[in-house]
Amino acid sequence: MKRLTRDKACYALSRDDEPVLHVAPGEVFCVETQDAASGKLKSPQDVYTEDLLPFVNPATGPIHVEGAQPGDLLRVDIERIDTNNFGVMALGDNKGGPMAAYVQSKETSFLDIDGGTIRLRENLSVPIEPMIGVIGTAPDGEPLSTLDPGEHGGNMDCKEIAAGASVYLPVAVEGGLLALGDLHALMGDGEVATCGADLSGEVVLSASVLHAALPTPCVETEDHLIFIGSAKTLDECERIVLNKSFRYLTDCVKLAPNEAVRLMSLVGDLGVCQVVSALKTMKFKLRKSALTAISAGGIITGT
Amino acid sequence: MKRLTRDKACYALSRDDEPVLHVAPGEVFCVETQDAASGKLKSPQDVYTEDLLPFVNPATGPIHVEGAQPGDLLRVDIERIDTNNFGVMALGDNKGGPMAAYVQSKETSFLDIDGGTIRLRENLSVPIEPMIGVIGTAPDGEPLSTLDPGEHGGNMDCKEIAAGASVYLPVAVEGGLLALGDLHALMGDGEVATCGADLSGEVVLSASVLHAALPTPCVETEDHLIFIGSAKTLDECERIVLNKSFRYLTDCVKLAPNEAVRLMSLVGDLGVCQVVSALKTMKFKLRKSALTAISAGGIITGT
Repeated sequence: MKRLTRDKACYALSRDDEPVLHVAPGEVFCVETQDAASGKLKSPQDVYTEDLLPFVNPATGPIHVEGAQPGDLLRVDIERIDTNNFGVMALGDNKGGPMAAYVQSKETSFLDIDGGTIRLRENLSVPIEPMIGVIGTAPDGEPLSTLDPGEHGGNMDCKEIAAGASVYLPVAVEGGLLALGDLHALMGDGEVATCGADLSGEVVLSASVLHAALPTPCVETEDHLIFIGSAKTLDECERIVLNKSFRYLTDCVKLAPNEAVRLMSLVGDLGVCQVVSALKTMKFKLRKSALTAISAGGIITGT
Repeated sequence: MKRLTRDKACYALSRDDEPVLHVAPGEVFCVETQDAASGKLKSPQDVYTEDLLPFVNPATGPIHVEGAQPGDLLRVDIERIDTNNFGVMALGDNKGGPMAAYVQSKETSFLDIDGGTIRLRENLSVPIEPMIGVIGTAPDGEPLSTLDPGEHGGNMDCKEIAAGASVYLPVAVEGGLLALGDLHALMGDGEVATCGADLSGEVVLSASVLHAALPTPCVETEDHLIFIGSAKTLDECERIVLNKSFRYLTDCVKLAPNEAVRLMSLVGDLGVCQVVSALKTMKFKLRKSALTAISAGGIITGT
């Protein structure tokens, strides 16, 4: 199995970057990732400063997927996520986010992970729920920072992007130029403190090329099909994810408009991914069992 | 067991309304409720019009809880929700909401409920998840329409307000003057079409009076403590529910500010209740298992 080492990190997704790995469609490979601070927070004395900004959210890549052409879709199947044995949380006033005014002083915490649980404080350990914070393809235009979420994926901080999930991303340039990083051992919807339990690790995955019309970014889990959108305000995110879900139900599942609206109101959940980046991110989760029951040709059609 | 019949409906929560039922703290009683259109949509030909507006969201009440004084908290324990055997969904352009532009034509659907499942369309039945759309107390000031969510509770459309949940509401006037209605057999977070599967039914519940400092409205389920807030935009709702959760963790659980912020980011989920009323509603869900582990005196303190 090919392995991409974590020194191959980038801080932007760019069509001009040379691929550091070439994979065939469906080939299983391993990507090592750095933590969200590029490993620069090593002790509680290392608090967050603006000097760190150029080193925030490294993504490992870009990875060239053979045969992927502009207009195609990339389906990234996440097989396994193995994490380091401690998570880092850096609180600090110049990190921004909605809780900035509540943080009393800059503080970096190291949370031990042992036997599948993470120790949040005295008397409180909870099971880890490893997820990928940043995963995206290179955009067609200007490079996008790995701090940014967007139509290319990126820093979506969607906690459903975990082992067993498939992530559908657009292909804007030849090979797709996939990159990923910013693993979290644990994170709540919103990531309100600007960080989860951030840590390094490795991801085993594969990527396939699809010719299908599906609004992206989209995440498929065991139970849900999830449409994701990012914008400056939550209200604008709401508009985007509802539009994507409606287009999916009418264009792909071929429901009549009124049926699509009813289904969205009954078995669709509007939710939040993160509220701490320059663009916020929301999700709309449709129940797959309902989609399967009414989609004779499968819930994602194409080749 | 006392029974409040569904003809005792109100369309505003008002300090000036005479109670239609008096109950003792902890007394178990039954409240019948009308559907969200006061039963006026009887066939597919009865589409939504503005004439219906005065009859939207009837709540049964007000109910006077003995001993409840301004400044107290009311804890409403929902024991059971029994629903009618069909849900109504009225789509119509003058209902507004984010999906208004996608609705092709006014249409009223009747969804059969049988054996605990609701039939959404051919080949698609799903289990019902009965919940209470409107539950609130009378405010201190001007009467509030049962269409409005707010600090008094009201039209929150929070799907966790279901059998087994406890709802904490403020007491602003003597007796609290509780009212409830707008049951849904099924609804997704957001209620994006302006309706769930709306229906009449009956609720078995009790109400207790607490002397405790807890940000309200708040819902306690088996697994979560949920703080609720309403405002014109989702971004403002976000600010409100994060503030309530932070105040709870620092004032009630006595966490240090930084610890509260970390916990919120790791085991707190920011989510959406509804985006279709004049005020939108969001929720912040904290894991009770985490709170229990660190709250020696119980997660809600007071008498």
